[in-house]
Amino acid sequence: MIATDYSIGILQYIPFFYVIWSDDLLSASEISVVQKVIQLDTSLNADEKHQLLRWLKRDAPPFDDEIKNWKQTIANSKVKLIESDTYPLSSLSQRLVNGENLNDHLKHIEVHLGIQPNHYNHLFDVEVVHEKTSDEYEANILDEILKGEHANVVDDFRCFLDKPDFSWQVLRHKEDFRNRVLHQVQLLGEAGYGALAYPAEYGGTGNMPAYAAIFEHLMFVDGSLAVKFGVQFGLFGGSIQKLGTKKHHDQYLAQAGETKLLGCFAMTETGHGSNVRGIKTTATYEKSSDSIIIHTPGKNDNKEYIGNALHSKMATVFAQLIVNGKNEGVHAILVPLRNENHDTLKGITVEDNGYKLGLNGVDNGKIWFNNVKVPRQNLLDKYGEIRDDGTYFSSIKNPNKRFFTMLGTLVGGRICVARGALGGSKMALSIAVKYALDRRQFNDNVKVQEDLIMDYPTHQLRLTPAIAGAYVYHFTLEEMMKRYSDDSQPDKRKIETQVAGLKSIITWFANETIQECREACGGKGYLLENRIADLKGDVDIFTTFEGDNTVLLQLAAKGILSDFRAEFNSAGFASVLKLLQTQLSDKLTAINPLYSNKVDAKHLYNPKFHKHAFDYRTRRLTYSLAMRIRNYIKKGIPSYQAFLKVQTHLLALGKAYSVELAYNIFCDHYQQLEDLKYRALLEKVGCLYALDQINQDAKWFLEQGYVGGTKSKAIRQRVERLSTELRPHIEVLVDGFGIPEHCLTAPITK
Amino acid sequence: MIATDYSIGILQYIPFFYVIWSDDLLSASEISVVQKVIQLDTSLNADEKHQLLRWLKRDAPPFDDEIKNWKQTIANSKVKLIESDTYPLSSLSQRLVNGENLNDHLKHIEVHLGIQPNHYNHLFDVEVVHEKTSDEYEANILDEILKGEHANVVDDFRCFLDKPDFSWQVLRHKEDFRNRVLHQVQLLGEAGYGALAYPAEYGGTGNMPAYAAIFEHLMFVDGSLAVKFGVQFGLFGGSIQKLGTKKHHDQYLAQAGETKLLGCFAMTETGHGSNVRGIKTTATYEKSSDSIIIHTPGKNDNKEYIGNALHSKMATVFAQLIVNGKNEGVHAILVPLRNENHDTLKGITVEDNGYKLGLNGVDNGKIWFNNVKVPRQNLLDKYGEIRDDGTYFSSIKNPNKRFFTMLGTLVGGRICVARGALGGSKMALSIAVKYALDRRQFNDNVKVQEDLIMDYPTHQLRLTPAIAGAYVYHFTLEEMMKRYSDDSQPDKRKIETQVAGLKSIITWFANETIQECREACGGKGYLLENRIADLKGDVDIFTTFEGDNTVLLQLAAKGILSDFRAEFNSAGFASVLKLLQTQLSDKLTAINPLYSNKVDAKHLYNPKFHKHAFDYRTRRLTYSLAMRIRNYIKKGIPSYQAFLKVQTHLLALGKAYSVELAYNIFCDHYQQLEDLKYRALLEKVGCLYALDQINQDAKWFLEQGYVGGTKSKAIRQRVERLSTELRPHIEVLVDGFGIPEHCLTAPITK
Repeated sequence: MIATDYSIGILQYIPFFYVIWSDDLLSASEISVVQKVIQLDTSLNADEKHQLLRWLKRDAPPFDDEIKNWKQTIANSKVKLIESDTYPLSSLSQRLVNGENLNDHLKHIEVHLGIQPNHYNHLFDVEVVHEKTSDEYEANILDEILKGEHANVVDDFRCFLDKPDFSWQVLRHKEDFRNRVLHQVQLLGEAGYGALAYPAEYGGTGNMPAYAAIFEHLMFVDGSLAVKFGVQFGLFGGSIQKLGTKKHHDQYLAQAGETKLLGCFAMTETGHGSNVRGIKTTATYEKSSDSIIIHTPGKNDNKEYIGNALHSKMATVFAQLIVNGKNEGVHAILVPLRNENHDTLKGITVEDNGYKLGLNGVDNGKIWFNNVKVPRQNLLDKYGEIRDDGTYFSSIKNPNKRFFTMLGTLVGGRICVARGALGGSKMALSIAVKYALDRRQFNDNVKVQEDLIMDYPTHQLRLTPAIAGAYVYHFTLEEMMKRYSDDSQPDKRKIETQVAGLKSIITWFANETIQECREACGGKGYLLENRIADLKGDVDIFTTFEGDNTVLLQLAAKGILSDFRAEFNSAGFASVLKLLQTQLSDKLTAINPLYSNKVDAKHLYNPKFHKHAFDYRTRRLTYSLAMRIRNYIKKGIPSYQAFLKVQTHLLALGKAYSVELAYNIFCDHYQQLEDLKYRALLEKVGCLYALDQINQDAKWFLEQGYVGGTKSKAIRQRVERLSTELRPHIEVLVDGFGIPEHCLTAPITK
Repeated sequence: MIATDYSIGILQYIPFFYVIWSDDLLSASEISVVQKVIQLDTSLNADEKHQLLRWLKRDAPPFDDEIKNWKQTIANSKVKLIESDTYPLSSLSQRLVNGENLNDHLKHIEVHLGIQPNHYNHLFDVEVVHEKTSDEYEANILDEILKGEHANVVDDFRCFLDKPDFSWQVLRHKEDFRNRVLHQVQLLGEAGYGALAYPAEYGGTGNMPAYAAIFEHLMFVDGSLAVKFGVQFGLFGGSIQKLGTKKHHDQYLAQAGETKLLGCFAMTETGHGSNVRGIKTTATYEKSSDSIIIHTPGKNDNKEYIGNALHSKMATVFAQLIVNGKNEGVHAILVPLRNENHDTLKGITVEDNGYKLGLNGVDNGKIWFNNVKVPRQNLLDKYGEIRDDGTYFSSIKNPNKRFFTMLGTLVGGRICVARGALGGSKMALSIAVKYALDRRQFNDNVKVQEDLIMDYPTHQLRLTPAIAGAYVYHFTLEEMMKRYSDDSQPDKRKIETQVAGLKSIITWFANETIQECREACGGKGYLLENRIADLKGDVDIFTTFEGDNTVLLQLAAKGILSDFRAEFNSAGFASVLKLLQTQLSDKLTAINPLYSNKVDAKHLYNPKFHKHAFDYRTRRLTYSLAMRIRNYIKKGIPSYQAFLKVQTHLLALGKAYSVELAYNIFCDHYQQLEDLKYRALLEKVGCLYALDQINQDAKWFLEQGYVGGTKSKAIRQRVERLSTELRPHIEVLVDGFGIPEHCLTAPITK
């Protein structure tokens, strides 16, 4: 039996040593923190220091019986562990030795090792005074950081939504649901929110970033509302704004913004979704009548999934423009669909797409055109016009380039789609966290009250990295919208590529997160009243619309391969192949074994390590992909086939690039924060994101020898540990999303 | 320029060499196949043999220009590639040399290398006569294999479902939907399908495995129907059958089977889902009236999510049985809920759970009991009774054991849940594959017709491993139900553990698969009419009900740790700890570097390798988990806390064990097939499953040094390759699921 009558000096360290050795997570740098403290602690004599330092040897850890004695000593003392103490463990130590003042050295250990009550509150056989949430951080400060420049617009908008018209309801019949959503869109239009991104002369403020922020908020009300809002103001109005000229703006833009003119965006066809260039609808110029004839040539060439199709008076129709017998490529034409009485016009057939997995408040439909004549002026002619003499003219001579320029103007919508998905995941996370902070289940048999499910490590691991992801993607999308809206940078090819990749990873992230939240809420999550079910059904299609994720990632990868010189969306491989013919070189330095097995906390938590890992991955994937394609081409394999062969590699590159981009933007952002306390919190959030991402792709890093087995395991443990460290702040983190009370209606959050 | 006038002998091999060298996948064993053929081919002279063998050196591959010449030679010949030829590549060669007979040696290569038109049809600049599906295999033979012993019951049942009552409809109002599903359940009951698993004297055939097979088929009709059917006949009827005694059987069982008595299964409470032992509802025996008083003591102690709650006349209520002031633990009591007029009885309150993410045809509700009196005889008293003298008696003295024995009788339901989820994934896969065999998108610019999306490698990778999974899990669940129904093996503890793990991995598999299928069908997959949307909403909750997956996996892991000696569902850790005190030893041999980098196709395709990998993983995880727990315990850490610390490790073990079990059962099954052709197909299917599983967990295998980086990459490539190899048979594979035409109503499958 080892002696248990420790001196006061040693006794105050016992709770710390017990916590430290109950796990084997301590790395060299963490041990050195403790060693340094002991050496500086003047309350200890030489013998005590010697004894304590002897217990800090990783290669000769204390005996199990010693550790048991520590535990017994603490238990016998009958002290309480009070989680709400500022320094709970130091305070426990203080009570243990009946001390009057906190030993600052102990506080130092407590802070620098990041040990928190939920790490150790089950370890002691003492009474624990629980605390659900730490008050170290304030949700409203996080919310301010997230709102950034749009604070005023967002605050006003949150108030605006606090009316019965926007309250959550179950409307199972699509007609009822659609009517309500239409009414909501009209309210928003009348209040000026629809036109927010339009120029001032058409009722707006020209503020696309603020538009994106309020768009995200609509997800807190209802996914159908967000989508119908996006169709009316972003796609229909946006197509007039971006593809039309002054005559169109003057005639239609303000009306669209005020919902006096309801419109839809008719691009996708049943037969052609992702391959827009292949659409079959024709728009043939007839000189005799100076009009354009819109026609659906065959089965499956009808427009499909067109949102707002049943409520619209007009459509922006994408069609192959044929002038004087020559196909000038895809152009957009404004086509009236219905008259004042809402009867469909001659030659127009609209059919309801019926019920869907979600978004049943959006009236998606199919549209057929049977030789529908519209005036020549209805061509949205910013990039290509039919002149008075009946000839076609475009300042962009290359038809491909023209097509891609037109599509490029729509990238803002893609950012909004990602933003909407992000909003859905924030909502689901808020609900799941609040439920987990209320729900208790199972327990140690000894205790009466069951544990909060938020205190289970598996539950923390389920929700915390996703919260970190939501923070990272929030700043990423804010920044991308800023860049996109910056008119001083007209060449958007790089941004298009980046947005394609980000839209993919963020909409997938949102779907996975919402699913985790559903399961984390068990049966309660399945009930419609708790909102997650709707989010799941609504956000699902975000992976498909505005570009199927699998297709977008391949386009993104081709952009990266061509160093952003290729026209985005180009199916031809010319630019990529051109680049491949020039010299390929990427001198990735070999990874030092010392580095690939460095498991020190300081190293693993360092953003430099994360950035290095992400950079290494992107460059390695780019280089190896380029080499593979080049080798195929050299053997004479057709480029189409060569790209098919590397399809999965393209996806991997697209994802890797996007994750790196998101993390870099996030780091740039939080590092500008002046408040060091919140900067530290966001650094930890970013660190969790980064390590979680590396962990998710650890297979690849291991295959490359970039990390060794030990490091890979250490990274996984750090993900778990960081998730636990953030546990006391988890409610503040989700409250920081700023979802208004009147939107967070789920009964399980109350 | 290299000469292009090859001799006939060489020329016939050119297409093969071109295909072989266009990729670098050829392993040593595959090269040796070709070498051997060349040596045996008497149509070649010595020079030709020498030349061909020179082109087979992996360390000195043919020059790129040589390969280009091959391609040009083929292109210049203007031959056709006809995919429907029995040996398409050999036939192409034959046409290339204007030969009359197929060279058997070439056929040999074609067969043994497993190269298929979709590997190379884009490689040649020749006309390709496409073929959607190979007729090498027949769907109905696969279907027979899957139906196994239940062929008659299943065939009859499929016919039975071919009536308007079971046709698919959109019913958005829950009342309409529930009434229709109730009607369907009644039809099934009247036809004897509800009682299938009951003894013959109560209208059944005692055939639980056949019951499971028809249960799966109900998913093809509608998820709500399957669940309501399961509640009425499996849970309500099953509780009477398994927990009741003859008096209950005589009075209720036949009636339940015929739906003359509708009932529900009231176990879960709002406050207690996974932790059944902690439920709060009380059943207090009152001697004076010889009755049992059922009572809901507090807020959140009501029953919740109870299926059939609104239609039922009676409930099997789980409650704490208190006899003479002593709590005898959880027991089940039959409690009448409503009278003949369907008014709720005194003291009973039922509330609708409202709309849900899916399963809106099931009437889930909450139930409160306010001192509801029922006769003592209503106690389902197989495992614990109240005697005439008012004392409690049970032949199982240990209350824990008694509780777990009762719960154990319900494991059949858990198998059915997994089976239902599997049925959902089969349905989604069938729809997605049929759509992908019809839908075309993008293409090489040269060709007029766009490619089938099924011909994209990413699409193959998305769907094919999931199809393999569905085959593996089908046989797994068939076998588990057989074992569960085998009354000669009364100790079901091992099966309970196994079913818990399998239910978890299979319901998660189903959700992921259905989601992939939704995305693979793009916007069409989102429309309700195409059925995937409903499947997604319905199957979602399968991960939660009949045991939350995360909880079940931990229970499974504890079972494995205790070598199946623990009572399943036990929250106490006694049995595990007991085992840990005995000697732990698992002599896993170190992995030879030659083995961990063996990338030969023969090795990677060998089930012995897969089994070894799975066995290694389970044993290593078991051993390391046990060591971790033991070390915590030794330091005096409370066992509850120790298990919290290893929660993620428990999940990993639960999954690993389940995958191994499934694969072993599958191998045992297909290896008994007498038809060698189908055995080979299923071996390939199993191989894809196994390699896909290893690939998914490659991080772990790499960390352990079980596979090296090269092998890990090779495994990934083999997963892609096998997915492509199965492409010609993919329609037959999904048709083999045997989903009747009248159930497969999705318009996109037509």
